Amino acid sequence: MSTIKRVEQPEHDPRVKAVFDDIRATRGKDYINNLWHYLAFDPALLEETWRDVKAVMAAPTLLDPKTKEMIYIAVSIANACPYCVHSHTAAAKSKGMSDAEHAELLRIVATAARTNHLLNALQIPIDEVFDADVR
Amino acid sequence: MSTIKRVEQPEHDPRVKAVFDDIRATRGKDYINNLWHYLAFDPALLEETWRDVKAVMAAPTLLDPKTKEMIYIAVSIANACPYCVHSHTAAAKSKGMSDAEHAELLRIVATAARTNHLLNALQIPIDEVFDADVR
Amino acid sequence: MSTIKRVEQPEHDPRVKAVFDDIRATRGKDYINNLWHYLAFDPALLEETWRDVKAVMAAPTLLDPKTKEMIYIAVSIANACPYCVHSHTAAAKSKGMSDAEHAELLRIVATAARTNHLLNALQIPIDEVFDADVR
Amino acid sequence: MSTIKRVEQPEHDPRVKAVFDDIRATRGKDYINNLWHYLAFDPALLEETWRDVKAVMAAPTLLDPKTKEMIYIAVSIANACPYCVHSHTAAAKSKGMSDAEHAELLRIVATAARTNHLLNALQIPIDEVFDADVR
Amino acid sequence: MSTIKRVEQPEHDPRVKAVFDDIRATRGKDYINNLWHYLAFDPALLEETWRDVKAVMAAPTLLDPKTKEMIYIAVSIANACPYCVHSHTAAAKSKGMSDAEHAELLRIVATAARTNHLLNALQIPIDEVFDADVR
Amino acid sequence: MSTIKRVEQPEHDPRVKAVFDDIRATRGKDYINNLWHYLAFDPALLEETWRDVKAVMAAPTLLDPKTKEMIYIAVSIANACPYCVHSHTAAAKSKGMSDAEHAELLRIVATAARTNHLLNALQIPIDEVFDADVR
Repeated sequence: MSTIKRVEQPEHDPRVKAVFDDIRATRGKDYINNLWHYLAFDPALLEETWRDVKAVMAAPTLLDPKTKEMIYIAVSIANACPYCVHSHTAAAKSKGMSDAEHAELLRIVATAARTNHLLNALQIPIDEVFDADVR
Repeated sequence: MSTIKRVEQPEHDPRVKAVFDDIRATRGKDYINNLWHYLAFDPALLEETWRDVKAVMAAPTLLDPKTKEMIYIAVSIANACPYCVHSHTAAAKSKGMSDAEHAELLRIVATAARTNHLLNALQIPIDEVFDADVR
Repeated sequence: MSTIKRVEQPEHDPRVKAVFDDIRATRGKDYINNLWHYLAFDPALLEETWRDVKAVMAAPTLLDPKTKEMIYIAVSIANACPYCVHSHTAAAKSKGMSDAEHAELLRIVATAARTNHLLNALQIPIDEVFDADVR
Repeated sequence: MSTIKRVEQPEHDPRVKAVFDDIRATRGKDYINNLWHYLAFDPALLEETWRDVKAVMAAPTLLDPKTKEMIYIAVSIANACPYCVHSHTAAAKSKGMSDAEHAELLRIVATAARTNHLLNALQIPIDEVFDADVR
Repeated sequence: MSTIKRVEQPEHDPRVKAVFDDIRATRGKDYINNLWHYLAFDPALLEETWRDVKAVMAAPTLLDPKTKEMIYIAVSIANACPYCVHSHTAAAKSKGMSDAEHAELLRIVATAARTNHLLNALQIPIDEVFDADVR
Repeated sequence: MSTIKRVEQPEHDPRVKAVFDDIRATRGKDYINNLWHYLAFDPALLEETWRDVKAVMAAPTLLDPKTKEMIYIAVSIANACPYCVHSHTAAAKSKGMSDAEHAELLRIVATAARTNHLLNALQIPIDEVFDADVR
């Protein structure tokens, strides 16, 4: 089920084809996952989304690809996005995340969630030493 | 303001003193941030919380300390916990996170949030290739 | 699957029948979606929920029906409610939301999510000019 | 700061005065907290909000008043609402919640948050035995 | 589908078997739900998770078991965790939650969610009388 | 307080000055709110953020500017972002949102939050008629 009709033959539209070709070239594989097939209903939204994801996640940056995927998963878990958790866990594994690293990621996320809720319950004043304008 | 009264002289309680001493020894500095002063209202909750945070964040594990703090920040942002974002951003900086790495973290978190919302709007089927039981 | 047993023959209860009849009359169609069939397990909760939704979404108010559904979808996406996203996207389409408007809604929601996370990461002071008590 | 201008002399409006009088009578005290002063900018919204809160939280129901406040706090923590956490923690205390019960509430909320994130990370199939339609 | 491969024969690992045996003994029934089968991929994470859940939810504490499950459900709803809502609703029912109590829980959660969003929209100042340090 | 040091003299950097000039020209006023002053710590992140916000919120699109701000506010409330709620409520007012429209927005957001939580509690099956692939 979905709230948007999956586009039949999306690559008949040259803008969609250009994005799909770039996804394949960037990832080095033919498979295009469902997200892009559905986003093809609006080529501009497809282009913008791919441009952003590619710039942040596929281009070489300061952090290594595996770490970037692990941060992405952490946000997706907290935002309760099933598709995102699935797709980025698969991506992290393909970029080398071991089962032990996956378990450690879960442990950090779970501990953060625990203290996030504790602090939002306590509503205590923030220490002045944490202020970047003071440091 | 807070929902719990800050404990006066928390270290008069030996259980609290033991936790505070361990926090100081583990972190190698005297300052005890507000969280622990307030949690001291219930020594058992203080002990459990410190035990968990120490085991995950202070003990040597597979991921390096800076990366662990960055994942912790990512979750805390998504869960909208001001205290947690402040304290763990300060911790990440003390463990070596540069401004450029901080900016990259924000970029990943913002991009993940964007696609988390897009996917939760589209509600599309999850690709079978993402299923760990199939892979 | 559900956490409540779907009520068999819900309209045997006159309070449920009255709500179902009003839903049909208000919407001008016979189909009653699953939400109401399940809420029928507690007629008072069913009545209250329908009363609220009807007053806000079905009665003529300042905003037009399509815009109201788009705001409803935006909240439902951010709260990660699959059923709500599905039902209100269908409602918005039945009230005239085009695919282009749907794409624009997604773009606004995604951009808001991006800056929501950025700002919750930065934790910066709020400009005094935004204070309604000052304006 | 606020996004709505605080109403000066709200009780000059008879609809607002009626709500304020009912709040005082229901709670048995004169103090009207800020929420109602600000909501007074729209008497209909004020009336609806008080009607709902009163029916659920102030009227005698199956659950005792302290337990109801504790559930309310739990939701407010997870939704990251500082005002709500403050006002309902104060309410729970006035209805008898001890410090030890408060600590236990925090422990349950923190544990739930931990497993909520773990499960949203694992995305595992839901056991059929949990289906209310099957039981 | 899941992001972790379900462990085949998890009880061949003595650490997993010890946890499973303790779950069975604590709950007084043979059925082990999916969560623990999947967490078995990392015995340490399995042990920690069960230790926490058992200490908070299975050991006798100040609050009765049914109330604790209702608070757990409230958090899980707000955090949008389908598995958690299912498993803890089933647990609450097995500990005596009636349909009427379930409906009341939903009513409190829904009312809290309503005011959580209202207050996060108004962003009003928190009354000083709510400050635990002042009281 | 903030997690990033506010940039002194941000417009000494020509990339920052270009963005600030464009913000002033686009909005037709001199005031630059805090967000942009803090984002100036990383000119690339500043540029990307402004580019996105401008394209979606400042350029003429299908929806009128006031409606777009109201949708933005709705998301920001649900994501519990105080800065965003403040800045976009001010923006919506400057684009014509009346107090009565503001109240209606709050009513829709509150009703959506209520049913979002109800549905995430019920976990009921989604009606097939909502599936866009079927319609």
